[in-house]
Amino acid sequence: MSQASLPALTMGLNALSALLDKAESYAAAKKIDPSVLLNTRLAPDMFSLLMQVQAATDIAKNGASRLAGVEPPRYEDTEKTLDELRVRIAKTLSYVESVDRAQIDASADRTLSFPLGPKNKGEMKGDDYLSHFLLPNFYFHLTVAYTILRHCGVELGKTDYLGGIPMKMSPR
Amino acid sequence: MSQASLPALTMGLNALSALLDKAESYAAAKKIDPSVLLNTRLAPDMFSLLMQVQAATDIAKNGASRLAGVEPPRYEDTEKTLDELRVRIAKTLSYVESVDRAQIDASADRTLSFPLGPKNKGEMKGDDYLSHFLLPNFYFHLTVAYTILRHCGVELGKTDYLGGIPMKMSPR
Repeated sequence: MSQASLPALTMGLNALSALLDKAESYAAAKKIDPSVLLNTRLAPDMFSLLMQVQAATDIAKNGASRLAGVEPPRYEDTEKTLDELRVRIAKTLSYVESVDRAQIDASADRTLSFPLGPKNKGEMKGDDYLSHFLLPNFYFHLTVAYTILRHCGVELGKTDYLGGIPMKMSPR
Repeated sequence: MSQASLPALTMGLNALSALLDKAESYAAAKKIDPSVLLNTRLAPDMFSLLMQVQAATDIAKNGASRLAGVEPPRYEDTEKTLDELRVRIAKTLSYVESVDRAQIDASADRTLSFPLGPKNKGEMKGDDYLSHFLLPNFYFHLTVAYTILRHCGVELGKTDYLGGIPMKMSPR
């Protein structure tokens, strides 16, 4: 359970932070205020880039906490700048790396309960939560963040999304 | 390994097929040719909706095959319509469900080798391939397909992306 969750979250959060670095370089080169990128949405009722980063980090820290059976830290969602978002990502990385792996490894058959919006709660078995909630939601927000930047013209490729994955590439 | 891969692929492919059903209803209601939706891209050098569906199904059938240590079936990429894409998804679902789970379960420490474009190959350990290649790439294309439809105005929510996940929802 910990091996199927924590490295994926760490890899994705590092990739997300690097995406923000590329957004910053692009904004500087094009003389665009970075807040234009941070406020871009792909549909009027979808989250902006800034909110996608908040959501991805929320899911990472909430997910690691639920699997470990501990209460997640609260974030205040006050970020406005690229620097503040990078601090939030770094804080989330530290948190994810601090969670007790043994507790996560014991979570596969445990029923996890978690808030869903202001009024409801969801309940899922630990391994279902990992496969059908945590990972798809985490990659959703990472992908939309990446796609917003592509949509805005930032030059990115799939490796910017995947991050520094442990793959050996060679000629066939 | 099979439990962390096959149910996620099945859930996602079923969600993708249902997204195409909603695209079809939307096109009919708005009197839009569905090919307009299928040819929409979120950046000029990103895949269209049609190609996102092809890519998601490719990754599902290739990923299940690589984990099981068998050669993936070849798809000819001739689809042009929603119906043809749904047939492709259904074929992929049948394939994913047919793969030998015991062979996948034995793949965590095996080194998998797979083509990367026309000239290169990638090599990864089975559990790394699942966590850092198969799942992030699969959710990438599923998310972009969903986001293209949201961008076009189709009314969708997160549950359309997640699919029929095994979650019990109740008041807090």
